[in-house]
Formats: sequence, structure tokens, C-alpha cells
Amino acid sequence: MSLVIVGTVAFDAIETPFGKTDKIVGGAATFAGLAASYLYPNVKLVSVIGEDFGEENLSIMTSKGIDVEGVEIIPGGKSFFWSGKYHNDMNSRDTLITELNVLADFDPKVPSSYQDCEYLLLGNLTPSVQLATLERLENKPKLVVLDTMNFWMDVAMDGLKEVLQKVDVLTINDAEARQLAGEYSLVKAADKILQMGPKYLIIKKGEHGALLFGEGQVFSAPALPLADVFDPTGAGDSFAGGFIGYLAKLQSVNFTNMKNAIIFGSALASFCVEKFGTERLQNLTKQEISDRIQQFVQLSKFEISE
Amino acid sequence: MSLVIVGTVAFDAIETPFGKTDKIVGGAATFAGLAASYLYPNVKLVSVIGEDFGEENLSIMTSKGIDVEGVEIIPGGKSFFWSGKYHNDMNSRDTLITELNVLADFDPKVPSSYQDCEYLLLGNLTPSVQLATLERLENKPKLVVLDTMNFWMDVAMDGLKEVLQKVDVLTINDAEARQLAGEYSLVKAADKILQMGPKYLIIKKGEHGALLFGEGQVFSAPALPLADVFDPTGAGDSFAGGFIGYLAKLQSVNFTNMKNAIIFGSALASFCVEKFGTERLQNLTKQEISDRIQQFVQLSKFEISE
Repeated sequence: MSLVIVGTVAFDAIETPFGKTDKIVGGAATFAGLAASYLYPNVKLVSVIGEDFGEENLSIMTSKGIDVEGVEIIPGGKSFFWSGKYHNDMNSRDTLITELNVLADFDPKVPSSYQDCEYLLLGNLTPSVQLATLERLENKPKLVVLDTMNFWMDVAMDGLKEVLQKVDVLTINDAEARQLAGEYSLVKAADKILQMGPKYLIIKKGEHGALLFGEGQVFSAPALPLADVFDPTGAGDSFAGGFIGYLAKLQSVNFTNMKNAIIFGSALASFCVEKFGTERLQNLTKQEISDRIQQFVQLSKFEISE
Repeated sequence: MSLVIVGTVAFDAIETPFGKTDKIVGGAATFAGLAASYLYPNVKLVSVIGEDFGEENLSIMTSKGIDVEGVEIIPGGKSFFWSGKYHNDMNSRDTLITELNVLADFDPKVPSSYQDCEYLLLGNLTPSVQLATLERLENKPKLVVLDTMNFWMDVAMDGLKEVLQKVDVLTINDAEARQLAGEYSLVKAADKILQMGPKYLIIKKGEHGALLFGEGQVFSAPALPLADVFDPTGAGDSFAGGFIGYLAKLQSVNFTNMKNAIIFGSALASFCVEKFGTERLQNLTKQEISDRIQQFVQLSKFEISE
């Protein structure tokens, strides 16, 4: 039994009000895989990289026990590269460079050793690659989580709608939920989106937390108020990885467990933003995670006895 | 023992994507007083109105047992009038008309029967009027809550800083907290604001809930996701009224009680936006409030057993 994550493994160059980086390791599958690895031991990645990525960078994943057999290395190829600059509010950013490189022809390989997949995270990627990965699994996983973004709604809505019909959980942000449903009210948007296929919808609201819709219920998860957000890159991917990693650990999917999974996802995301790139996610302890979870409990707990 | 609320009692004319109203009853003290009246029986208003307001409109308050002895009626005067139009997102609005009328010379009268005040809400008003009300109370109340807005930061920052030194709780929205502190991070902004006088800071985030800072702790309260926000006018005032009304009922002020008070304030605000103006707040039952509180409990409750 395993948790399979498909997504980018890439290089980023990031500028924030706190400083800037050279090319550092990034990518949705990287962040999600690292986050999940703290909660579940059997994480496997599907991705594509160029020869430039190198063993040393791959060891960021393998040193955490993450299986990279499904990470195809294209001889002579260059890895996907994204460069961006965050504004002072850290909520908006400009993309400076996007070099697709080997990602342009990404044809996801699912090794036979991955056919034990029970939990599948379709990380933010072109919907056709997400769909291909799903189809190359011989057995339908217990749970399929899809992460996507407004870009795919703009350029590949038909493909996105097709893959939406085959997933259990969709994670998007509030602006994307409004765009996808054509409804400003998030309650109405959620109703519409839950008719498109997913049984559960998670609306990520960044510093405002997240909402979970499904089974006729709603859950509002807080975000941890942070004095400094150092680099938001990968926060959403860390959230998704922490979320599905926790459910894989529990081996049980229902609304109650999903609420807790969102808290774990939020906790992993709150670590991610404390340093540039994957730095913080490479060096977490179980105690730190446990303490952070307790912070979330304290943050939102109240008891009313009228 | 009583809860005294100073603020506007006024007329509004409101346009939203759902329709528009003629002149209807509004004002910060009106909304706050109505909200508080469901939680605490002894609510007293300090305000000023013109002869145009009329007994029938005042009976909206008096029929709820709200004392209006401190609402001065200026012979021949016209009541404060505000007209605004909300945009489709219901989060932003344009002010169409502001007629100060009798509010321009508001000199708050505190009747001797109000000297039993133990809980004081200084509703959104010019800081000099908030300060005058506070000074006209012979005994310092147990708890003073101040509501204000960006407008007073722009035109009366010195007065605002003076009154801030004399209050226990400040309620403002996130943009206003950033403006007041000159810090983007709400954690850093809260630290600075808590050094300006208040022991507690409530940051209202509208559809994203509210944050409470104080006693070295943080609490994140959810907002109820609503299918339709009919008219947001008065939501912040209803929140403040519900908040202080609940604390007045408990007769005990600490962080734990304040968390619950925020939930009650949020519940009252969630009713307020369901209809135009004060309509919904005029017709609530205890059962409806109790059911709404349970919705808030369900919305944010999770239990993690690792």
C-alpha cells in the first residue's frame, strides 16, 4: 500500500521582501512529498526532471524515504524552472520566468511497484497528465485528491472537468472556486463544484485558513497567524501533501478524519513558509509537528455552556 | 448595573445587488443595541437624533427594552443620514451620501440613571465624542470596548490614540489594524496595538471570521459561510453589540469568556446580514440564536487523537 504523488519536481528562483535565492529545489510534488513523508512512510513520486537535477537534489526526497522510481530523468534534458517575485503583502506575486523544459512533453510513467497505490495526489499539473496518471493505475485508489489552479481553468477547462469527474477531493483557493463555479458566494460555488464530481471540496484561503465542504457539512479550519511569512512558495502543495499523508496514515476516509487532515495540512504549510523553498520541510521533527498541531487546537478551541 | 452603548442612531438608504431601500433605520448604536438586547436585559443608548426620527422608529429599540433616555432629540433637527451602494462582492461599497445633520454637534449626554454602567461600548464615532462619554461616567466601567474605523485614523489619529489609552478592547478590521500599526503582519500589528492601551484586540475579517489577541494568546473565530449576504450594513456593530452583551451577561471578563463572546458577536452579525437594515435583528428568537451558536460549534470543532 502506498501514497503516490504526481507533480512537478523542479527548480525555483524566488525573490521576497526578505531576500532572494539562486536556483533552488522546488516543484509541487517535491513539497507535497516532503510534507507527506512526515506522516506516512510509503510515499512515491511520479514526475519528470532533466539531467541537470542531479543525485544530490534527488536525495532531498530519497533521504526521507520517498520513492523516486517514477521520477523520469530525461537524458540531456533541463528541469522545469520557475522564477517569481512576491510583493510586500506576500499574497500576490509576479512570475518572472517559466521554462517548461522537460515538463513540456511529460508523459507520466507509473512503475509496476506503484500499483499498490491506495492514496493518490494529482498535484497541480496540466489536467491531461493528471488523467493519464490516474488511468495508468490498474486499480482505482481508495482516495484521489486533485490540486489545480486558475491557469488550467483558463487554458484547459474541458480537461479539468473530465478529471474532476474521477476524483474524490478537490483543493483550490477561493478565487479559483469562484471562477470554476461562476458564483461569488463560496457556499453556492461549493454546491456547484460538488456536482462536477468531487465528493469533497477544500477551499484554501491562505492566511484566512481553509473550508471543507462535503457530506452536507462545512468545516472552517483556522490558519496560524504568523509574525513573518518568509516565502509562500509550496505552501499549497505542502498543505495537500500533509492532508493526504495524514489520511493515508489513518487508512480511513470520512468527514471527521478529513477535518483533522486539514489541520495537519495547515500545520505542514505553516512550516513551509518559514524559510525559502524546501529548507524548513527538510528539517522537521515529530515533536515540532506535534507542538504545531497543539497550537492549532488552542487557536480555535472554545466551549460554550449557555 | 447596565451596558451603555454610545453611537449613531440614524437613517440609511442602501443599495445592494439584491435591491434597494428608501430611508430605513440604521446607525451603529441601533445595531449594537439590538444585538446586545438579546443577551443582556439592561441596555442603554447614548446618541443624538433629529425630530424627524420619530417615536415609531425609536420603538424599534424601546420594544426590546432598550433605554433611550440618553438619546437626545434636537428640536427641528434632522437625523444623521448615510446612503451607500454595495458592489457585487458585498465586501466593498461606495458612499453616495453622508449628511451629518445633528451628529455634527453631538455632545453626548449621560443621564444620571446611566451611572450604574459597568460595560461600555464606544461605538464607531469621532474619538472626541467617545472620550467625552467615557469622562462623563463617574466610575470607570468594568469593561470598555472601542469600535472605530479607518476614517478616524485618517482625520483624528491623535484623538483616537488618546481614547485608545483608556479602553480595554479595540475592535477593528484587518486593513485598519495594518494602518493603525504600520505593520502588514497581523501578529506584529497586534503586538504594537496592544502597546497603545487596549488589553485585547479583536481583528474583524468579515467573511473570514475574527482574531482575538490578548493575555499572550490568540484565538481564531470562524465566520459562518453564507449562501447569500443580503446587506452587510451594521454587521460590525451587531458583532460588537453581541460581544459586549454576552460579557455583560456573564459579568466576568477573561480570555476564555471573550472567545465565546466573539462567537456570540459573530452569530448576531450573521443574522444581521440576512435582511436589509435592522429587519432581521428586530425579529430573533432565543432558539434561533441558540441554533446558530451550535452551527458555529459544529463549523470549527475538531478533535485530534494522534
